[in-house]
Amino acid sequence: MQKSIESVSVFAPATIANVGSAFDVLGCALEAPGDTVVATFCERPGITITAIHGDDGKLPLDPTHNTAGVSVCCLVDALTNKSGTPGTNRGISLELHKGLPVGSGLGSSSASTVAAVVAANELLGSPLSRIELLPFAMEGERVACGAAHADNVAPCLLGGFVLIRSYDPLDVIQLPAPSSASIAVVNPHLELKTSDARKILKAHVPLASAVAQWGNVAALVAGLFRDDLELMGRALHDTIIEPERAQLIPGYKEAKSAALSAGALGCSISGSGPSIFALCNDPLTAERVATVMVEAFYKAGVSSTKHVSGINTVGARVIERK
Amino acid sequence: MQKSIESVSVFAPATIANVGSAFDVLGCALEAPGDTVVATFCERPGITITAIHGDDGKLPLDPTHNTAGVSVCCLVDALTNKSGTPGTNRGISLELHKGLPVGSGLGSSSASTVAAVVAANELLGSPLSRIELLPFAMEGERVACGAAHADNVAPCLLGGFVLIRSYDPLDVIQLPAPSSASIAVVNPHLELKTSDARKILKAHVPLASAVAQWGNVAALVAGLFRDDLELMGRALHDTIIEPERAQLIPGYKEAKSAALSAGALGCSISGSGPSIFALCNDPLTAERVATVMVEAFYKAGVSSTKHVSGINTVGARVIERK
Repeated sequence: MQKSIESVSVFAPATIANVGSAFDVLGCALEAPGDTVVATFCERPGITITAIHGDDGKLPLDPTHNTAGVSVCCLVDALTNKSGTPGTNRGISLELHKGLPVGSGLGSSSASTVAAVVAANELLGSPLSRIELLPFAMEGERVACGAAHADNVAPCLLGGFVLIRSYDPLDVIQLPAPSSASIAVVNPHLELKTSDARKILKAHVPLASAVAQWGNVAALVAGLFRDDLELMGRALHDTIIEPERAQLIPGYKEAKSAALSAGALGCSISGSGPSIFALCNDPLTAERVATVMVEAFYKAGVSSTKHVSGINTVGARVIERK
Repeated sequence: MQKSIESVSVFAPATIANVGSAFDVLGCALEAPGDTVVATFCERPGITITAIHGDDGKLPLDPTHNTAGVSVCCLVDALTNKSGTPGTNRGISLELHKGLPVGSGLGSSSASTVAAVVAANELLGSPLSRIELLPFAMEGERVACGAAHADNVAPCLLGGFVLIRSYDPLDVIQLPAPSSASIAVVNPHLELKTSDARKILKAHVPLASAVAQWGNVAALVAGLFRDDLELMGRALHDTIIEPERAQLIPGYKEAKSAALSAGALGCSISGSGPSIFALCNDPLTAERVATVMVEAFYKAGVSSTKHVSGINTVGARVIERK
């Protein structure tokens, strides 16, 4: 007889929301870095967060205020209502290992939320599919940024590039991932609140700019289907959001310019920043691009951390069952 | 020895620019209706328009004021500068047979221009490829609507769905055409100037609407690559342009509503109107949809003409060489 599972560890990756021109509708998952969450059955009923490592004490242990806690509570409530109390009246404890810096624009809250939801679902016998988990993960985003956005959680759950066509009704479309893309990511050591990065945006935009933007968004999607990195690079061009948010990131313009000079096909802000990403043809180019971006930030007085990653095509993954 | 060609007839199809959400960036070609142009070598040097049939006298015979004439003049000038005078000092006469009503939103000027340019190029020994002919056809659009738009002429030349990502530099991307789509097109007998349909648009749009729009544009492109007509139908939804232009087309709302009730997957304005189109799964549905749209316009006091067509995937075509 197979021993029942008491504990599941899940890794969920960093994600790049917006992806240049596709503000608020597109996101993609990276292979690394990411967060790991361990979900374990415990005697205490309900959801408990026992520890958060690597957040410098920034995140709340109270599960009603923690994105991962909120999402898992919603999930367990829904499953309980659906099929009786799961896990024989036991509770679930969560232990979060943050590999992603908070407020970095790399989908840090989404990674914790998705890892926790996938781990809890697995612990409960995997009653729901990945796409069925999405609404629960989105509840965590409501806690993190005031709105149930899906452009980080959807690619984090599903992998690859994911388009959110509409929220009412929710219409999520998985797109092909380019087979050979390498992404250089640089995280300047500045904290930028999503709410501040939203506030800077103008409520109205010129129609001509919007048209140019949706031409680029269309081309970005075509580039994904064609596996055409050059086209994707051209199509990242964002004339609406990036010029506003660039003002909040000292060194951004210099870093972008350095990235393009060093061979990046395109470069933009990851999520609401301050992290930035550059699309490259191969890992060697991406390493070189990441290095020149770090140097450019350094010259602007900002220290930063670099990562080079391929596109994660599977989303969050179970790394251990005990 | 093969007899030299003295005359070429080319058919160029109607096109639907904008295609719902993708205002000013996307267009597609229909199989029918369309215009035919006969280009013939003549003794009189330069470009002459000898006759225009089916335009009710609306179009100028002066080649410097006629879109087809302007484009062919540009083409011949460019070829002359490149490789000496083509056609041994003879001129080219053009005879236009309008199958498309002027000012209908079905790319009438583009069809004449493209047919003329393709016919002249063929007459001159086909020195240029289809994509190389695009800038010359765009010059005709500058005469027709004041700007060198490509969202009618590009699909008319190339066939299928064509995305214009950017004009500076010109970046034209051919997209796959859905294999089984049937399009119901209804042309209400109202003349609507492109310039008036432009004037009604607001210079600024809410960012939230623009985001919804580019989510739909992205989904429309994904639908084309996936050959997913249902997704395309959802993605036609246009919250920015259609609500403004619908005011200029009496009966539009009723016709759209009737189309959707009769099984259309999506419906929007063709180009700047007044023609409207509906995406359907098959020709029978499209016939039914076209009929209910005509009835709805009739109830609104507007007579109209209907067409049902598949997507033309080859663009303009030579129908006779003599």
